[in-house]
Amino acid sequence: MIIQFKEPLQRDIAQEIKAKLEALPSQVFLIRNHMAAMGVKAFDFTQKEASAIEQVTFDDPSFTLGSRQFQPEDTVIELPHTNIGGDNFTMMAGPCSVESEDHVRRMAKVAKAGGATVLRGGAFKPRTSPYSFQGLGEAGLKYLREAADESDMDVITEVMDVPHVDMVGQYTDIFQIGARNMQNFSLLKAVGKTNIAVGLKRGMSATLDDLLNAAEYIASEGNHNIFLIERGIRTFDNKYTRNTFDLAAIPVLRQLTHYPVIADPSHAVGEWDLVTPMANAAVAAGAQGEIVEIHDDPAHALSDGPQALKPKTYLEMTREVFALRKTMASFKATANVSD
Amino acid sequence: MIIQFKEPLQRDIAQEIKAKLEALPSQVFLIRNHMAAMGVKAFDFTQKEASAIEQVTFDDPSFTLGSRQFQPEDTVIELPHTNIGGDNFTMMAGPCSVESEDHVRRMAKVAKAGGATVLRGGAFKPRTSPYSFQGLGEAGLKYLREAADESDMDVITEVMDVPHVDMVGQYTDIFQIGARNMQNFSLLKAVGKTNIAVGLKRGMSATLDDLLNAAEYIASEGNHNIFLIERGIRTFDNKYTRNTFDLAAIPVLRQLTHYPVIADPSHAVGEWDLVTPMANAAVAAGAQGEIVEIHDDPAHALSDGPQALKPKTYLEMTREVFALRKTMASFKATANVSD
Amino acid sequence: MIIQFKEPLQRDIAQEIKAKLEALPSQVFLIRNHMAAMGVKAFDFTQKEASAIEQVTFDDPSFTLGSRQFQPEDTVIELPHTNIGGDNFTMMAGPCSVESEDHVRRMAKVAKAGGATVLRGGAFKPRTSPYSFQGLGEAGLKYLREAADESDMDVITEVMDVPHVDMVGQYTDIFQIGARNMQNFSLLKAVGKTNIAVGLKRGMSATLDDLLNAAEYIASEGNHNIFLIERGIRTFDNKYTRNTFDLAAIPVLRQLTHYPVIADPSHAVGEWDLVTPMANAAVAAGAQGEIVEIHDDPAHALSDGPQALKPKTYLEMTREVFALRKTMASFKATANVSD
Amino acid sequence: MIIQFKEPLQRDIAQEIKAKLEALPSQVFLIRNHMAAMGVKAFDFTQKEASAIEQVTFDDPSFTLGSRQFQPEDTVIELPHTNIGGDNFTMMAGPCSVESEDHVRRMAKVAKAGGATVLRGGAFKPRTSPYSFQGLGEAGLKYLREAADESDMDVITEVMDVPHVDMVGQYTDIFQIGARNMQNFSLLKAVGKTNIAVGLKRGMSATLDDLLNAAEYIASEGNHNIFLIERGIRTFDNKYTRNTFDLAAIPVLRQLTHYPVIADPSHAVGEWDLVTPMANAAVAAGAQGEIVEIHDDPAHALSDGPQALKPKTYLEMTREVFALRKTMASFKATANVSD
Repeated sequence: MIIQFKEPLQRDIAQEIKAKLEALPSQVFLIRNHMAAMGVKAFDFTQKEASAIEQVTFDDPSFTLGSRQFQPEDTVIELPHTNIGGDNFTMMAGPCSVESEDHVRRMAKVAKAGGATVLRGGAFKPRTSPYSFQGLGEAGLKYLREAADESDMDVITEVMDVPHVDMVGQYTDIFQIGARNMQNFSLLKAVGKTNIAVGLKRGMSATLDDLLNAAEYIASEGNHNIFLIERGIRTFDNKYTRNTFDLAAIPVLRQLTHYPVIADPSHAVGEWDLVTPMANAAVAAGAQGEIVEIHDDPAHALSDGPQALKPKTYLEMTREVFALRKTMASFKATANVSD
Repeated sequence: MIIQFKEPLQRDIAQEIKAKLEALPSQVFLIRNHMAAMGVKAFDFTQKEASAIEQVTFDDPSFTLGSRQFQPEDTVIELPHTNIGGDNFTMMAGPCSVESEDHVRRMAKVAKAGGATVLRGGAFKPRTSPYSFQGLGEAGLKYLREAADESDMDVITEVMDVPHVDMVGQYTDIFQIGARNMQNFSLLKAVGKTNIAVGLKRGMSATLDDLLNAAEYIASEGNHNIFLIERGIRTFDNKYTRNTFDLAAIPVLRQLTHYPVIADPSHAVGEWDLVTPMANAAVAAGAQGEIVEIHDDPAHALSDGPQALKPKTYLEMTREVFALRKTMASFKATANVSD
Repeated sequence: MIIQFKEPLQRDIAQEIKAKLEALPSQVFLIRNHMAAMGVKAFDFTQKEASAIEQVTFDDPSFTLGSRQFQPEDTVIELPHTNIGGDNFTMMAGPCSVESEDHVRRMAKVAKAGGATVLRGGAFKPRTSPYSFQGLGEAGLKYLREAADESDMDVITEVMDVPHVDMVGQYTDIFQIGARNMQNFSLLKAVGKTNIAVGLKRGMSATLDDLLNAAEYIASEGNHNIFLIERGIRTFDNKYTRNTFDLAAIPVLRQLTHYPVIADPSHAVGEWDLVTPMANAAVAAGAQGEIVEIHDDPAHALSDGPQALKPKTYLEMTREVFALRKTMASFKATANVSD
Repeated sequence: MIIQFKEPLQRDIAQEIKAKLEALPSQVFLIRNHMAAMGVKAFDFTQKEASAIEQVTFDDPSFTLGSRQFQPEDTVIELPHTNIGGDNFTMMAGPCSVESEDHVRRMAKVAKAGGATVLRGGAFKPRTSPYSFQGLGEAGLKYLREAADESDMDVITEVMDVPHVDMVGQYTDIFQIGARNMQNFSLLKAVGKTNIAVGLKRGMSATLDDLLNAAEYIASEGNHNIFLIERGIRTFDNKYTRNTFDLAAIPVLRQLTHYPVIADPSHAVGEWDLVTPMANAAVAAGAQGEIVEIHDDPAHALSDGPQALKPKTYLEMTREVFALRKTMASFKATANVSD
């Protein structure tokens, strides 16, 4: 059940209702003038209670807090150098792995030159094999932070487990939750207890409901600075692309949720020469930003070299993406013309 | 093996080589100054033969005739009112099914108004259930042809089996081969024996190699007026969209083959309010055209109503698509910047 | 709507009802004492009509004729040397392709020695590439028929298109419809007009509803001698097996339909050394038979060598399968213990 | 590289080689008389070194320690009441969630009566939604342990994150790593540092290589008491079954690895009336055990009720499974007949 209270909110009545609902029992959330009571499918309000209420709906999805029913307006995440969501378009770029202090600093400058305001870089790497490069660890985080600061950028980096949340949180503006950890519920709860923004990657075989329920694990702990990242799904079709980039997920998610939706064409396709057309397609599909991997020497990258854009290609890609974004901005909202 | 002969082609030498190759045995094709000999992985040329040859490659894929190795330049299909392929961008639109003489005529006018030069409409419908509407048959083809002629458009319509090829061919400019028939090899051979253009839809679980091999069945019979249609694949993710639109297939196919690549966002997503963002995404991904379904009263459409665009939405969609196409045209080719 | 008439059937009343239903309009089928009226969701019977009726249900699935609601008891297909369905267990074996008169004759003897009563062999081969071996054509059918007759076996062979139905029908006891043609609706209708049994293979990405609807195309034309073949589906997992063998489809289909369900472990896994464990698994899952490929010299088979069992392995496999079948037969029906 | 030393192992020479390899650098493991040096593709041995070596291979897969090349003989895990692997067949059963002290105790007795020697039960539940029942936590572990002890059984229960490893380890004989955590690499490393057996479930979209690489994360930390659980994968086909049970994974895994392979038909199909046929199929496919969910009142189970077997059905299922297992045991190994 979602209750939309009249404004201004009559807080005493809201608290009275909250207490009743929690006794049902139900988990109850009051955010601004909206209350969500999980699992409640019917409720009798007193006349006094009813007088404080604008609207009640019982058809909220399982991901109530993330739903448009709960919050119709877009979430906008405010970081020192970046706003994510709403009408903002955010470019995030950087190397797959932080490789050295010097390298990440140079890559930050390239990223910035292309219009990126968020620097990406992995210090803890979730690799398929235990014998692959696992990242520089905390040293990598330091280099990443310094490189970002030097270029006036914000930082996004992956946190892989609960014990690392505090430490990683000292260096980053955004926790990235990787595709393999999308349903690591303990980790979701742990970052949900912080006030650091979270970029949640869709799992390889996660439905959109799975993704939104995973986001709900974060939100239900109190952290609402969440954005979602479409990065390709696993299908039968993987000879020419690493994954299948599910671009229709972008407009679907934008209908279902108020969280920003960002595209990751690099992981979606896994081949550098397909990144630009897919980055372009993502903008046209309505993505509110992109996250891409860059490297000045992909052949010697410590991870994911084949999908990294060289600086020159990256700069050309961002030029195209921003031009398409501008064309897109000239259109009126069209989604509801038919009805 | 692909032999690229020097220009001008020394036809007698080419014929001599062809005879030797056919005796191996191999299926041999000579098109302009290119010869393909299927399955040949080594061959000793005489000095005289070698003198007529520019280049020989043995690494052609199984879909030799369709490959860029065999024909580097784009195929352009020329129809009375339309060119498909190369730098052309082709809009195809119309109702899912031809429903009546009057209806298809009105829909043709809408399609034309949005910039379409090809009218689509099904007269023979491949429906999952035998008890669903199966199409108007030959009467539907007549209405479709007349509607197209009246609006100076070309016709694309599905042919479902070998016995219908001749009859359907009397009414249409383009045979559509549906997704369910993509590996109906007898049908592919039959349309391959005509000189009518073929729009080949990717099967629901077809890899790109499967699709290109299916096209090869058509080409190997002599018909090279082929274009490919990406219309979504079947994956685990089908709650909010009917299929998963595999947009990365567009740039991949454009690298692999010289055939035009057209996008079908209507079938890919199956929901009208997702068609515009996906049509936009397809242009940005490099599609050389789109095929979409329109209907003035989707709720009463005889098939696929949920994915049909109403006229007003269709016109807004085409306005966006052509604007994005114009932006795209302003970019230089970027695919090979990195190397 | 399904009407179950009282026995003995009052034919005049049934015909009266049929006429009314057809006028709705609806497609109406009367088979023994069951009537199916497609798409009818409500109907007022006269008192006289009602008196002839045992039971009426409106919740039939789209594949009405194939459903257990329409025919609770198992279909049993009777061939000269074989019964398929019910408590029978049918082994079908033979080479992938008919390769020569002598070869198929020898393979028939091997097949028979292992307990097979149906000889398989392809004369028209649906190959991914047009340049692969396409089968011996009608000559192959003759060899196959003679080999089966010599060993007192029935024949199953693939028919690929409508124009071939009559000709292939002269040689075979069972039409096989291949996975790629599962939704070749014209072909389904054509074999539905014959009285020759049909073995319908599940398409690579067909849901079970798709499969049952495809069978309905055959049944709605009057041919009810249908069995279904599970042969693996296409998923992301194809490094070690050609397809993913969906064995749970066997008990699900046996709940939904009265048609026999046969397993094809050869195509499902595509590797000979996995065929025996999967053939065993299929029996244990409740398959009513198996169809497998055998070859005395797989390395030189004209198609699908890697999945062919050598005679010795085949004989060992059938020994295991029949032993497990015997163990299975010793169990009581267990599917409904819980409720 | 895998080095198989002659027996008896000359430990000083082995240590000398190990030191050289580690200096390359490489991660090096010496287990009994086998040494694995990760990533080493060539190495020059001195004559003295060579004299201590039986065989060297460089074609080990990325999951070296788990591979048959490294350890040809089956791993057998020895627990107080159970041996897992080799020719043993292990039944594991219990409720999805530990619901109460009394309930789990009663379920343990049912499980035992059906031949189970391992009691399963979740105290920490990875639920799609944060608002679903999350398990009883440590209290649940106590009840589970007591119930198992009372019935002379071993315990398997899920551990969900790194901070819980020590605590859960005080109660369980086997850590279960759930499908959603299969690539939670931090967790894999943490259980790898214990000496408690680990049952690793295949992820919903994990390839078999992914699964074996995940096991390698555990093994590379020193814990070799690992078994693998096939529990169904996510495909397009999910109307009648929750997942697609990939039974061919069982014989494939048994070829690739020495770890025991256990089947989980309950999660694979998600419907109780399909569990028995699939449990039977798993035995026939070569599974070395099964893990199933039971409940005396599925309609009121706190999680996964639809797939739980009632006691009577469970007892019938185990009767069938053990009978089929006995039939299977009567066959000779057949996998290599053809060659």
